[in-house]
Amino acid sequence: MSALSPPLPLRPGETLGILGGGQLGRMLALAAGRLGFDVAVLERDADSPAGRVAAHVIVGAYDDPEALKALAARARVVTYEFENVPAQAVQTLQQLGVEVAPGPEALAVAQDRITEKQFLNAAGAPTVAFRGADTPDEAVAAAEAMGAPVLMKTRREGYDGKGQRWIEHARDAAEVFRALGGRPVILEAPADFTRELSIIAARGRDGATAIYPLAENHHEGGILRRTLAPAIVSTALAEQAERIAVRVLEGLGYVGVIGIELFELADGRLLVNEIAPRVHNSGHWTQDGCSVDQFEQQVRAVCGWPLGPTMPHARIEMLNLLGDEVDQWARLAHDPDSRLHLYGKRVAQSGRKMGHVNKLRPL
Amino acid sequence: MSALSPPLPLRPGETLGILGGGQLGRMLALAAGRLGFDVAVLERDADSPAGRVAAHVIVGAYDDPEALKALAARARVVTYEFENVPAQAVQTLQQLGVEVAPGPEALAVAQDRITEKQFLNAAGAPTVAFRGADTPDEAVAAAEAMGAPVLMKTRREGYDGKGQRWIEHARDAAEVFRALGGRPVILEAPADFTRELSIIAARGRDGATAIYPLAENHHEGGILRRTLAPAIVSTALAEQAERIAVRVLEGLGYVGVIGIELFELADGRLLVNEIAPRVHNSGHWTQDGCSVDQFEQQVRAVCGWPLGPTMPHARIEMLNLLGDEVDQWARLAHDPDSRLHLYGKRVAQSGRKMGHVNKLRPL
Repeated sequence: MSALSPPLPLRPGETLGILGGGQLGRMLALAAGRLGFDVAVLERDADSPAGRVAAHVIVGAYDDPEALKALAARARVVTYEFENVPAQAVQTLQQLGVEVAPGPEALAVAQDRITEKQFLNAAGAPTVAFRGADTPDEAVAAAEAMGAPVLMKTRREGYDGKGQRWIEHARDAAEVFRALGGRPVILEAPADFTRELSIIAARGRDGATAIYPLAENHHEGGILRRTLAPAIVSTALAEQAERIAVRVLEGLGYVGVIGIELFELADGRLLVNEIAPRVHNSGHWTQDGCSVDQFEQQVRAVCGWPLGPTMPHARIEMLNLLGDEVDQWARLAHDPDSRLHLYGKRVAQSGRKMGHVNKLRPL
Repeated sequence: MSALSPPLPLRPGETLGILGGGQLGRMLALAAGRLGFDVAVLERDADSPAGRVAAHVIVGAYDDPEALKALAARARVVTYEFENVPAQAVQTLQQLGVEVAPGPEALAVAQDRITEKQFLNAAGAPTVAFRGADTPDEAVAAAEAMGAPVLMKTRREGYDGKGQRWIEHARDAAEVFRALGGRPVILEAPADFTRELSIIAARGRDGATAIYPLAENHHEGGILRRTLAPAIVSTALAEQAERIAVRVLEGLGYVGVIGIELFELADGRLLVNEIAPRVHNSGHWTQDGCSVDQFEQQVRAVCGWPLGPTMPHARIEMLNLLGDEVDQWARLAHDPDSRLHLYGKRVAQSGRKMGHVNKLRPL
């Protein structure tokens, strides 16, 4: 693609590129297919969940210049399914004339937990207190200053509870720092929360925003287990969450769907736990609860289409199917109120997200 | 696949074969993808709407033994998106151990308008009066016996109003017979109908049936233009339609989704116009009006899964986008009550079905 590319919106029949071939990429590709787009997936695995529903698969690493060139030759808009896309990959695509969304600012913020919290606080989206540490000694000093218990996380990478550990005594901070790989970390004060919520929001290329109702999330061992949505909340809480979402979207000049994880405190305040610059597991309920789900919304946003409505028509209980739980598909298929979404992954490793079920509940 | 294949249901991760690469195949493939299946499409065109969302594309004619063998090597269940699949193709697949659904009985009935009406009447599903004719003289005799006007159609093939002609005077029957290709025809008495309705129904491999509410259809130039569903009908009419659907499904020992086109007469009786042994254009409203749409229902039925519910959660006005009407996508994308379904066809020939829009209306 070159500077001669016609302006967006991307037209049906054109190709949307996706970095990443997992389940989020697959559900994005299915949504893009409904709207008449072709999809090109760039992914290391030649037989990926997303690749198997895409018109084009480019096999390669996300930082392989030849693979990125091949993607740019196919797609003049590219999005991604996970936040650890290398910044270099986005730059390379942009230099090749590709519109990448969400943009590099959102990626930079989401990839570094300290930058993320600094951005959030500056944008008026409150978080727990935190400190950074680059050495074992700094880690001990930070833990002493904050007072244990504190949660230590690697600054970069880590998901589903990986790369993090609670510290019960400040003196343990050096050992935990080393156990997490001896890399820069963030120490976070505990959030004395009563509920974990999340909000899925979108911003279009025209600056319009669309916000789904709050979802209530239940984790087990750091992995999302269950989402109830729309969550039962007061109007004030809903408005507080929407204000946070708009501040985050505007603050990043964001284009696309974002997942914002929130802690609800006993005093009714919301803190932002983290943001994910992509479609989000806690937004899967929208597939069967809303007329335009988070996947179509993401396609619309990044392709320069107007955003769709976010009003729910059903209450949903979303359950992740982890590892061999996916074998329950036959039983679930019999339940008239259960809608199955299976990812086509070849191997059901323990804890691996293999699918989910949206159970319909009256609104 | 061999006689050693495990019994159905087809498991997520296995491959569903589809004969035909058009929009119906595409929407079937997208539905199969949601349930974790891989899809293999057999289609003459290497760049087809369905092929572009399928894991495997086998390029070939439906009666090409090598192509059918390649399909059978991938898929132990095969379905199709159109009723003019050659009987030989189904036989070849069956000999290779493939489960083909709907079965050859349904295809044989749907491919011949006289066999179809004979079957329907025998099953207790009333139709207009009809006669067959194999020569120009027989055509004139039939038209004289029935009394003009009568509708002459080729016995086989023809869709969207092609291959048919009204005869105003019995003496014209010979000329029209020749104009339609000199092939065997059926002459049909006019149906003095007040409304065109259709019913989309399904039967599983376990013999269970599931029936969607009636839809009201409006044609222009023989092509479906607009569907309103659920149609506003009396309980008695709905029950009459459901009885017809069950008789047809049971009479054919059917497996899959069927579209049954109906005439509503002034006296409240329903006649069957024709049946389509596949997902049907007048069932597209289910994509946004029901929790399990006709495409997932078809995948469930042919793969040996239990059928899903057919209760609507919205009233839908479905409009086909024909030819360059598809260029309205940008305007329609702005309407919060319009859900777009575009097929990714490369060329917008006049009258060609390029997409459809489901407009949500309160139930």
